[in-house]
Amino acid sequence: MPNNLTIALDIMGGDYGPRSSLPAAVDAVNSIEHLTLILCGNERLIRTELDKRGALTHPRIHIQHCSEVVNNDDKPSLALRNKKDSSMRIALELVKSGRAQACVSAGNTGALLATAHYVLKMLPGINRPALISSVPTQTPKPVYLLDLGANVICDAQTLFQFAIMGSVVAEQAQNLTKARVSLLNIGAEEIKGHECIKEAAKLMQACPDLNYIGYSEGSDIFTGKADVIVCDGFVGNVALKTCEGIAKLIFHKLNKALNKSIFYKVLALLLTPVLKKLYKRVNPDQYNGASLVGLRGIVVKSHGNASEKAFYAAIKEAVREVERQLPEKIQHKFEQVLKNSAAEK
Amino acid sequence: MPNNLTIALDIMGGDYGPRSSLPAAVDAVNSIEHLTLILCGNERLIRTELDKRGALTHPRIHIQHCSEVVNNDDKPSLALRNKKDSSMRIALELVKSGRAQACVSAGNTGALLATAHYVLKMLPGINRPALISSVPTQTPKPVYLLDLGANVICDAQTLFQFAIMGSVVAEQAQNLTKARVSLLNIGAEEIKGHECIKEAAKLMQACPDLNYIGYSEGSDIFTGKADVIVCDGFVGNVALKTCEGIAKLIFHKLNKALNKSIFYKVLALLLTPVLKKLYKRVNPDQYNGASLVGLRGIVVKSHGNASEKAFYAAIKEAVREVERQLPEKIQHKFEQVLKNSAAEK
Repeated sequence: MPNNLTIALDIMGGDYGPRSSLPAAVDAVNSIEHLTLILCGNERLIRTELDKRGALTHPRIHIQHCSEVVNNDDKPSLALRNKKDSSMRIALELVKSGRAQACVSAGNTGALLATAHYVLKMLPGINRPALISSVPTQTPKPVYLLDLGANVICDAQTLFQFAIMGSVVAEQAQNLTKARVSLLNIGAEEIKGHECIKEAAKLMQACPDLNYIGYSEGSDIFTGKADVIVCDGFVGNVALKTCEGIAKLIFHKLNKALNKSIFYKVLALLLTPVLKKLYKRVNPDQYNGASLVGLRGIVVKSHGNASEKAFYAAIKEAVREVERQLPEKIQHKFEQVLKNSAAEK
Repeated sequence: MPNNLTIALDIMGGDYGPRSSLPAAVDAVNSIEHLTLILCGNERLIRTELDKRGALTHPRIHIQHCSEVVNNDDKPSLALRNKKDSSMRIALELVKSGRAQACVSAGNTGALLATAHYVLKMLPGINRPALISSVPTQTPKPVYLLDLGANVICDAQTLFQFAIMGSVVAEQAQNLTKARVSLLNIGAEEIKGHECIKEAAKLMQACPDLNYIGYSEGSDIFTGKADVIVCDGFVGNVALKTCEGIAKLIFHKLNKALNKSIFYKVLALLLTPVLKKLYKRVNPDQYNGASLVGLRGIVVKSHGNASEKAFYAAIKEAVREVERQLPEKIQHKFEQVLKNSAAEK
């Protein structure tokens, strides 16, 4: 029997707010028996929506009223300073106080990062939190890509720490003994890239606790040659969103090509289930949440314009991370790396 | 009647060397009447290959023997210093001396950049050369993306200069009066990105000769909202290669899905022409060359593992750039920007 677990949801965040987060919450408690949810947001709004879905008195749904909402265009520093009763902030405070074991939000990424960093604090020895997500590959296993936008500039030590955190995530999620870690660069040769990348490569190469396999290029991300690919948050964000863009372009062009004659229109109709499934699978931002790692608590970021299904997937991701005790595992790995590097000296 | 034009080809560069460049060269002189080619490389090898194709005595094919070849793993600085009789260097020297009006190479990108920079020199007022290529969008017009890997780190002034060069390329190629220029960033809001991006945005915004439309995210590249998207070479290279990778992934998954039952296998067979055409269109690296802009001469870089068709497309791109007098147009635009900015002060 799995242990009971409690997750705090920022119901107000994201482009659709409660419209996508609330139905997802109701689905989640209905399908995951040991899950309790604390819905953070405007109580009246939440009550109305729960009532509509016949879930107002659900024994595993609790409401935590919050008077403020962090908007998508709020500056992170101002959201942190001025919106102390926001649904995002309160959901994070619930994790901090131990009332919840994880938090899920589809809100403003910058504000979530800044607030999570401030409220939860970093695990010992880790410089910066990173956003990590899995991306499909040509093999049955996905690749974990980080950082996806938490840090626009990263030094070599930070990239090295990302490699360690990414390894733990991939190993836990995919049952690997030693995740293959690669650094994203603009060429496979050792001479390529800027100094920071080269320095990070040296750190990874020298660490006996990492299975570092060298550089990857953008085209290698999806081949399955690595389990973890590390890059700074600017590059990772552009790479992830470029995937989203090109996937849309391909399906747009395919649709157009299949609309050119009655013959192809019929083919298109027959192909619809295959294409729909494929589109979801190659558009990672749509089907799962990115996780913030390196913090003393679990925070899952759902896509800003996440549908009900995507928000549900983010809740499930949070459940899995609680079950895997991800922050504890990351902390343990860092202690081990530190011990081994001290023993070497 | 178009004027005669002469292009120097680095026959030895790229993963396949003469195997793809030579048949492409023969095709090009046969289909473009006013084109003369100077083939730079090992004379014996070139003669044998031309003979096989019955083109040994073609009046518009000349051979320039070179005793050296720049390899893919040669360090750019060493290739520049030590391989003065390489096919790449000689092809560039032919442009410098005026014997050829453009050069095409599929060789080592770093070496081509360093050698082209050294041999041809920059146009006045331009800091750095940039690699630019067109990428398909959801509209009939492509978007021009730069820099694709010539400069791993760029300051704001350099990004600003890329915007000007990109505008000229897009306007000339697509017959636009004022190309819409955007900066690649990790969010559309003004607060996003690092200082260098924000500074570059200010420079672009303030320039009356540029039609700057704000930031784009990776997912916006293919929507057609901009005619030119500017980024540093690290980010641009990752974005382009990520496109290549995800396109391969999508077609791989589609093939797999279509192989699951006889029904879908038949559909796949019927779809083959559509899929093949689409794959070529969304995999820009395969179908055309990237151009080096900012130099006092035209240099087109064909993909390292370019097929015969792709190398032919790169030759055609060089022909178009000669006809458009691209370096002169870029120089003219820079003079205009300088004049207008002086008039403002």
